[in-house]
Amino acid sequence: MPIAQIHIMEGRSDEQKEQLIAEVTSAIARSLDSPEANVRVMITEMPKQHFGIGGQSAKKLGR
Amino acid sequence: MPIAQIHIMEGRSDEQKEQLIAEVTSAIARSLDSPEANVRVMITEMPKQHFGIGGQSAKKLGR
Amino acid sequence: MPIAQIHIMEGRSDEQKEQLIAEVTSAIARSLDSPEANVRVMITEMPKQHFGIGGQSAKKLGR
Amino acid sequence: MPIAQIHIMEGRSDEQKEQLIAEVTSAIARSLDSPEANVRVMITEMPKQHFGIGGQSAKKLGR
Amino acid sequence: MPIAQIHIMEGRSDEQKEQLIAEVTSAIARSLDSPEANVRVMITEMPKQHFGIGGQSAKKLGR
Amino acid sequence: MPIAQIHIMEGRSDEQKEQLIAEVTSAIARSLDSPEANVRVMITEMPKQHFGIGGQSAKKLGR
Repeated sequence: MPIAQIHIMEGRSDEQKEQLIAEVTSAIARSLDSPEANVRVMITEMPKQHFGIGGQSAKKLGR
Repeated sequence: MPIAQIHIMEGRSDEQKEQLIAEVTSAIARSLDSPEANVRVMITEMPKQHFGIGGQSAKKLGR
Repeated sequence: MPIAQIHIMEGRSDEQKEQLIAEVTSAIARSLDSPEANVRVMITEMPKQHFGIGGQSAKKLGR
Repeated sequence: MPIAQIHIMEGRSDEQKEQLIAEVTSAIARSLDSPEANVRVMITEMPKQHFGIGGQSAKKLGR
Repeated sequence: MPIAQIHIMEGRSDEQKEQLIAEVTSAIARSLDSPEANVRVMITEMPKQHFGIGGQSAKKLGR
Repeated sequence: MPIAQIHIMEGRSDEQKEQLIAEVTSAIARSLDSPEANVRVMITEMPKQHFGIGGQSAKKLGR
């Protein structure tokens, strides 16, 4: 029962998130030879000012 | 100092969350024979489109 | 499908961990009115030198 | 800079883990249209007695 | 490539979060003798009713 | 009650981890104007084959 938590920057569409769930689930099932039905994926969105890269937030870095 | 993080689907009432904190804290303290005062619980809510079950989001699955 | 991750200090017996899984699962199911079968619990053990309380490790604090 | 943490049951080979990293990275990059170089993957292994499914550990369930 | 996730109570200003990212990044780089550019920091905010201290939420405790 | 979880590559000494706990705790307390006594730090070590950077493990990349 693999469980993946994925932190991404906010701003993706629901379609992209649905694709993310489908593709990551498939990738995990294929790599571990385990049924797709057993895979869980949790997406966590971060505002740009909550993600720090080398000491500055993504917001401050203009990303 | 046990620390629990619980991911749940969004939509629960504050009363349910308060009960969740109380009951999980008590369960941890009892199982580990450790004081309730030392237990921390963090609840993380997920929108339905952020939780993938077997390759599809809970939203798409109509849950 | 609630998913709980519990960080505890290393040193508990397998019986305590089994009880922890059973009791926390039951507490979550009861509080959220959701089937026990849907609950997942992940226990993560920490060595004493990996857990900091107020700026010092549990090892250094003699806990 | 997407960051994925994947919890799996212990017992996989290094080759499977390497494939897991490669395939999940590729799946994330493709879904989010973001460079593979920016993706980070962290694998966390759990002993069977640390993973609870419906109130019992995977060890007790004989999985 | 150290990755830190910090759970804080909601209500801090963007300036405090920016300082938090800068200072924690610097603290990690200094302690591990690793380049600041490699450090990632993720801030996760919790509403007061999502954080349990000794069995009650921070909201109920009036914190 | 800020709680930090820091993922680092395995191989650091206990002295470095103790310093990491002390410095990160101090950085958090200073940034958030909150007492050091309330800060918790959890260090999680990853073997090199469990950390993926751009699709390959740190082990494969020779880091």
